[in-house]
Amino acid sequence: MSEIGATEMLSESLGSFVLVKLKGGREVRGLMKSFDQHLNLVLENAEELFPDKEPKKLGAIIVRGDNVVIVSPSPR
Amino acid sequence: MSEIGATEMLSESLGSFVLVKLKGGREVRGLMKSFDQHLNLVLENAEELFPDKEPKKLGAIIVRGDNVVIVSPSPR
Amino acid sequence: MSEIGATEMLSESLGSFVLVKLKGGREVRGLMKSFDQHLNLVLENAEELFPDKEPKKLGAIIVRGDNVVIVSPSPR
Amino acid sequence: MSEIGATEMLSESLGSFVLVKLKGGREVRGLMKSFDQHLNLVLENAEELFPDKEPKKLGAIIVRGDNVVIVSPSPR
Amino acid sequence: MSEIGATEMLSESLGSFVLVKLKGGREVRGLMKSFDQHLNLVLENAEELFPDKEPKKLGAIIVRGDNVVIVSPSPR
Amino acid sequence: MSEIGATEMLSESLGSFVLVKLKGGREVRGLMKSFDQHLNLVLENAEELFPDKEPKKLGAIIVRGDNVVIVSPSPR
Amino acid sequence: MSEIGATEMLSESLGSFVLVKLKGGREVRGLMKSFDQHLNLVLENAEELFPDKEPKKLGAIIVRGDNVVIVSPSPR
Repeated sequence: MSEIGATEMLSESLGSFVLVKLKGGREVRGLMKSFDQHLNLVLENAEELFPDKEPKKLGAIIVRGDNVVIVSPSPR
Repeated sequence: MSEIGATEMLSESLGSFVLVKLKGGREVRGLMKSFDQHLNLVLENAEELFPDKEPKKLGAIIVRGDNVVIVSPSPR
Repeated sequence: MSEIGATEMLSESLGSFVLVKLKGGREVRGLMKSFDQHLNLVLENAEELFPDKEPKKLGAIIVRGDNVVIVSPSPR
Repeated sequence: MSEIGATEMLSESLGSFVLVKLKGGREVRGLMKSFDQHLNLVLENAEELFPDKEPKKLGAIIVRGDNVVIVSPSPR
Repeated sequence: MSEIGATEMLSESLGSFVLVKLKGGREVRGLMKSFDQHLNLVLENAEELFPDKEPKKLGAIIVRGDNVVIVSPSPR
Repeated sequence: MSEIGATEMLSESLGSFVLVKLKGGREVRGLMKSFDQHLNLVLENAEELFPDKEPKKLGAIIVRGDNVVIVSPSPR
Repeated sequence: MSEIGATEMLSESLGSFVLVKLKGGREVRGLMKSFDQHLNLVLENAEELFPDKEPKKLGAIIVRGDNVVIVSPSPR
């Protein structure tokens, strides 16, 4: 089995949509433009997702990495 | 694809309005005058936003970076 | 546009009233006597503000910087 | 008694399913592809588990280590 | 205006009663016997204060500094 | 009185059952196989305990030390 | 006034009962066997205290220091 690290997975996701689950329950989705080792992320065409209403468009955003719980490069 | 980092996005936002989502659910919006690597921000003409009432004017403010969840340089 | 940093804004606020929003929702207001790089603050004539009752006088106080969310040098 | 450390247990779990309990009550399960010393994890075929409804498929995910409470290499 | 720092204010409070507001809403009051740069405090004749009942005597206590929100050297 | 430190107590508990109270109220119990200076723990035959229902078997687990509140080497 | 520091107070409490208030509202009491500079504590004959029911015996315990809010060497 070849080991796939977090950095490799993030690098492959540059230019693709990712789903980001944040502390406190928030979720955002957007096109990943950059990341760093703290998981600070820059997303474009981002929107905040809600369990029971329509997504809210946010445009380009910076996510501070210490809020990130899960990054999913293959959102469904 | 050219990579756009957080610092570049913040630099381009100097002098423009940004939306800042904070831990605990607070949101503020204001004209960004400065930032540093911890995401400490100085905003002018800032106001706090509420889900169900009018924004409250705060004037010039300093936001301590460790409270920041999301900075959106293109609030709608 | 000239960049105004947090330190400059805080320095200009020495001797003036500032509004300080704290984690957990508390708010205090007082005359700023000193600050440091962690946003530890010394306020005089301070009072705690409440959404639905009269302010409570606290006198001189020290605010530990890691609790600070927003400092507003121009409270209204 | 031979001592079995966390790193050894994680290494043996590469390529196997693990259950991960996160701060705030979330739980995810997935095939562990990599880990580091902060307990940052890469999981494939991951799904989020809920106490009272069906699991939600997440695909490949990165879990930021500071959210991890418990990793169980032998979920039942 | 002469600047009065946190350390000076704390030094002047040695041997006097201080009010200490803690994270999570707790409040204690006591005679300050010592402090350090993390705001670890030693209080004597301390008591915990409650919004709606009588104070509870605690005697001598050590307060771990990272819980401190506000120290008021002039409680009323 | 001879002083018994945390490390000595943990060392003596290797191979014995310990009770671990975690932040947020969770409790787990298991056979301690290893620990480090951050209180990261490896437990075998672990189970999660609940105030009002049967324990849930978890098998072998890794507990991330920063979640630990209390370790009791002599659970009753 | 002679200054009594936290370390001196803790040293004098070795072999005596202390009351420990923890983040999140938990309280434990026990015979202090050791402490370190992070306020990690080893207590013997420890019990957890509750506002409205009988204490629960825990035996010997290790308390991780970052959970400690207040240590009172003279519980009543």
